[in-house]
Amino acid sequence: MSGTFLYEGKTKIVELSEDGQSVILTFKDDITAGDGAKHDVLTSKGQFCSETTARLMHYLNTKGVYTMFINYIPPNKIRARKLKMIPLEVIVRFKKAGSFVRRYGGTEGEDLPEALVEFTYKSDAMHDPLMCVEHLEVLGILDRENAVKIINQAKQAANFLKEFFSLHGFELWDIKFEYGFDEAGNICLGDEISPDTMRLRKAGEIFDKDIYRRDLGNPMEKYEVVLNLCRSILL
Amino acid sequence: MSGTFLYEGKTKIVELSEDGQSVILTFKDDITAGDGAKHDVLTSKGQFCSETTARLMHYLNTKGVYTMFINYIPPNKIRARKLKMIPLEVIVRFKKAGSFVRRYGGTEGEDLPEALVEFTYKSDAMHDPLMCVEHLEVLGILDRENAVKIINQAKQAANFLKEFFSLHGFELWDIKFEYGFDEAGNICLGDEISPDTMRLRKAGEIFDKDIYRRDLGNPMEKYEVVLNLCRSILL
Repeated sequence: MSGTFLYEGKTKIVELSEDGQSVILTFKDDITAGDGAKHDVLTSKGQFCSETTARLMHYLNTKGVYTMFINYIPPNKIRARKLKMIPLEVIVRFKKAGSFVRRYGGTEGEDLPEALVEFTYKSDAMHDPLMCVEHLEVLGILDRENAVKIINQAKQAANFLKEFFSLHGFELWDIKFEYGFDEAGNICLGDEISPDTMRLRKAGEIFDKDIYRRDLGNPMEKYEVVLNLCRSILL
Repeated sequence: MSGTFLYEGKTKIVELSEDGQSVILTFKDDITAGDGAKHDVLTSKGQFCSETTARLMHYLNTKGVYTMFINYIPPNKIRARKLKMIPLEVIVRFKKAGSFVRRYGGTEGEDLPEALVEFTYKSDAMHDPLMCVEHLEVLGILDRENAVKIINQAKQAANFLKEFFSLHGFELWDIKFEYGFDEAGNICLGDEISPDTMRLRKAGEIFDKDIYRRDLGNPMEKYEVVLNLCRSILL
């Protein structure tokens, strides 16, 4: 695993694999919130989030969703497809929460009449501003055809995950995806799927990064609960 | 002009006409900025903005754009169609400026590669948040069909106005429209078209509300210049 260093983000390191055919993502123990203003290092986070991502992306692969996931390298690495990442967060919302409520009002946990897909531009400095499809086109970030493909793929993937969690008694409120282009130019789901990237609730209890955002203690116990239920997905 | 009072906004009073078939808009001398945080009363503003609106909407009517304008009642009133207003600001941008630059960066006055239409929800308390077509649908504000109609009508109207001002050596950078439904359910351009609702520049000089927003003195002299060039449109 002595690949070429490509990129280090707030929670991951990306290296080219030795044969140059894939990338190795190393999930760090770092957790951040508020555009990086809040930052801590939590034992086991990298392991929990990488294994959760591996199992959930494998699950999506078996459902026909095209994800980056190739294989899991314990404890905290994933071998993934090489992607040219699109600098957007793609949020699928089933219920009102977080930035949606701050923007438009309403109550945390209130149902939306149908799944809503939002794009935000990945920029801590600009606080991840909302972008409509028209902005993506005019600013040259993504053409309408690919934007519509992402909207449809994101809704489909989110619905599969919502269904999976609901079988275990959990409610998926919203989830953030990131997409990239593979070498053939296909849209592919990348990045991470873990309690860091979704709101997951069970009978009013929080099982996601909101525990950290709201200073409700060390969230790793709940992240481990989520990982354990994902272990029903066999790799 | 002793109609039934319907509504008073920051800069206008709306009354039902005596015969109940139209409304009378009275343009006040009030000017506001920053979601109403800044507020002044400027002599002649109501007259300048009502007459400018009257002439520009008449111009649009002659071009086949459907506006609320029926007739001008000097000095500061307009007889208009009765509309059920949609609580949105519809912004057509030809250049980057104002909230666009605050949201996405870039330079004031930089060209956009094509006209961009944005919707913001009219709410001072929520600071007029940006809404994509998907938000309008999911929140029950406007269906996609009417949203697309408004996008097309707003681009068309803005292009006619850009052309008109450009014949007089002025650059229209952006403009804010408000739409409503007439009694037959048709989308109709309402509200106001004046230096209060657009960015209008000539050789670097400002002829719009940015004079007031940026504390650059009393803007009425420039509003009068704009009105005078609109007087080439005969009512």
